[in-house]
Amino acid sequence: MIIAGIVAEYNPFHNGHSYQLEALRKQIHPDAVVVVMSGNFLQRGEPAIVSKWTRTQMALEAGVDLVVELPYVFAVGKADVFARGAVSILDRLGVNRLFFSSECGRIEPFFNSLSLIGHHKADYEAKLTESMAKGISYPNAHAAAYRFIAQNCEKELVDLSLPNNSLGFHYIKALHQLGSKMKPITIKRLQAEHNDQTFDNDAAIASASSIRLHLMSGEQTDSICNKLPGHVAEALVAAKTKIGYAGWERFFPFLKYQLLSSNAARLAQIYEMEEGIEHRLLECIRTASTFDAFIAAVKTKRYTWARLQRLAVHILTDTLKEEAKPLALSSDPGSTRLLGMNGKGQAYLADIRKSAAITVISKIRNHRSLLLNIDLKTAQVYDYLINTDHKPMRYTETSHPPIRYDETNRRLLNE
Amino acid sequence: MIIAGIVAEYNPFHNGHSYQLEALRKQIHPDAVVVVMSGNFLQRGEPAIVSKWTRTQMALEAGVDLVVELPYVFAVGKADVFARGAVSILDRLGVNRLFFSSECGRIEPFFNSLSLIGHHKADYEAKLTESMAKGISYPNAHAAAYRFIAQNCEKELVDLSLPNNSLGFHYIKALHQLGSKMKPITIKRLQAEHNDQTFDNDAAIASASSIRLHLMSGEQTDSICNKLPGHVAEALVAAKTKIGYAGWERFFPFLKYQLLSSNAARLAQIYEMEEGIEHRLLECIRTASTFDAFIAAVKTKRYTWARLQRLAVHILTDTLKEEAKPLALSSDPGSTRLLGMNGKGQAYLADIRKSAAITVISKIRNHRSLLLNIDLKTAQVYDYLINTDHKPMRYTETSHPPIRYDETNRRLLNE
Repeated sequence: MIIAGIVAEYNPFHNGHSYQLEALRKQIHPDAVVVVMSGNFLQRGEPAIVSKWTRTQMALEAGVDLVVELPYVFAVGKADVFARGAVSILDRLGVNRLFFSSECGRIEPFFNSLSLIGHHKADYEAKLTESMAKGISYPNAHAAAYRFIAQNCEKELVDLSLPNNSLGFHYIKALHQLGSKMKPITIKRLQAEHNDQTFDNDAAIASASSIRLHLMSGEQTDSICNKLPGHVAEALVAAKTKIGYAGWERFFPFLKYQLLSSNAARLAQIYEMEEGIEHRLLECIRTASTFDAFIAAVKTKRYTWARLQRLAVHILTDTLKEEAKPLALSSDPGSTRLLGMNGKGQAYLADIRKSAAITVISKIRNHRSLLLNIDLKTAQVYDYLINTDHKPMRYTETSHPPIRYDETNRRLLNE
Repeated sequence: MIIAGIVAEYNPFHNGHSYQLEALRKQIHPDAVVVVMSGNFLQRGEPAIVSKWTRTQMALEAGVDLVVELPYVFAVGKADVFARGAVSILDRLGVNRLFFSSECGRIEPFFNSLSLIGHHKADYEAKLTESMAKGISYPNAHAAAYRFIAQNCEKELVDLSLPNNSLGFHYIKALHQLGSKMKPITIKRLQAEHNDQTFDNDAAIASASSIRLHLMSGEQTDSICNKLPGHVAEALVAAKTKIGYAGWERFFPFLKYQLLSSNAARLAQIYEMEEGIEHRLLECIRTASTFDAFIAAVKTKRYTWARLQRLAVHILTDTLKEEAKPLALSSDPGSTRLLGMNGKGQAYLADIRKSAAITVISKIRNHRSLLLNIDLKTAQVYDYLINTDHKPMRYTETSHPPIRYDETNRRLLNE
């Protein structure tokens, strides 16, 4: 059996993602496609524009067979934490092909780069430490160290300054670290890069971030809709009408309140709060009247924008070092929540459930763990902040059943 | 010199307060009137309808000479903590007459009651403990114990089940505990009792709580305005137009968010969180969509409404046991912030400033203390929550100068 795995955020699902699924089917004819997807908060430290349930629905309607949740501690983690969590979950679910898009498009250079770093570990780390001591951010320090050891390498290497290459590299590294037998396969990403904000009205593919920017700024015009599968455009309209899109500007008053009501000692306990940056945050929040202005005020060359945004998410959700750090460093997530499945996904899950080296949670009430507590709490914060006027909701985070999709008749069986 | 002191919240200042000042002048012809006033959060666990600066202005325009702030840990404290903090500050400011209104209206019964409890301490405390062990709230347990020891007393006692008598009793007790030489004087409160919600359209006096209820519910009609001095009605209109009234329903989304993002261990650190009630709060907040519904859901006979509301204020302001408790138990506040003064108040302050057994703070930037840190933080939370859309403000909490009032020409010199 060929079981393909994808790591995704689908924020929102768009034509680039459809293209990836299509390419996957053509290339490897999988028996099932499993996606591990971030929940309500994402790797770049942002609230997802619509909830994980709506995004799961989008994935199932696009042909994914099984969607499970990447727990918060990984989903809102640095690239290596994010990748290790995601790869570990797919591996434990019996996935044997790891499929990802990259600017590079071929897998060999990834292996070459991994082996290069492995062979020049001492030099690489010395350079990395040197740069970071100068106050340079980790990604830039890494890039400099990598350039240094790559100077005389004759094999083809992957350009790690490109965002999807870099993420892909972390998957390959995680596969290696975890001793996984999953085979990685990469295809070339079409056009728009991950965080490319340019937006071509007529093109069928744009980056998720440029699509979000257009969605948030107002009307759902044709130029956006032609970049999204029809069912996604419909789901977005429905979500927008019901409770609106989530985003930092909407959540900012609560972040600001949280910081104003806190103090340095209390903030120092927040996950990823390091080097006394809590003092800077407390200073900058006073006069900040928008989220972007706040992050811009805090920003120095030591911190990337994404790192500061992730920190802001941890503050917003009051996620503490003592609870999150040990979990994020573990290579065994222990469990993953089932977000949705179609008939094929359900059959696959039934096959592997007993033997899988991970618990797949369908009903929350039967489970409790430190990892799950964080997921539930952070999801509840998100759910409340997008619905502070208490519109009636069919499900709470704890009562929400997995989304079920009938792929034969193309219809959702719940929700 | 006769220096009169009053403990007040002025939420808002109304005709009953004018009447009290008038009676004071007639009875004791004071050389100055000093008021110690709660800041932005009040003894019953509520945000003040308008900020302490606006309320100070109201007091000065009504003839008070000097207004200083009752720090948060006392202002949002149980009756005995509140009274001890307030009495201590007035005492240290050289006040020699403590003036308060009560349902009783004569001072002798207060002394009789204090001495009765002093003489039957063992019986009183045994009864108190017995009732509280049954899960009865402190005020009710106190009332039962008091009734028990009062049975055979032949002297006239004060009815401590009435709110202003009870507060007055705590002043008398504090005077005794602190060994203060201030002479207490009480006058009979007119008509409406402290928390009486009835509202007679034609009467000139109504309770502050019934006035607030009317103000919050909509228009500032004549029936409200005839219960307020003209300058107060004007100040309320101005505050309402600028940023609106503060109140729990407006702050509730932030309280709910704070609870949802917290957990039992973190909540257990909050000031006045006792007996595991944090678990009950976390359970009840999930489905609560208004502040009143939330408190009603949490309420048991063990907790009074006011105590739960104070706890909610401490949660909202993230005020911790370890910082607040030692300060609340101390009988020396150390400092008090100067909120406002007229010419006479300024002259009096100049006279006593050097000899006073308390620091009177005019400029925040020259001072820092644990007590002041709590005041600043809680005030900043209030200031932000009434202005989440960042309307430009002339002063911040730290830059705000004391309000100055020229009593001769009847005009405010700043603000």
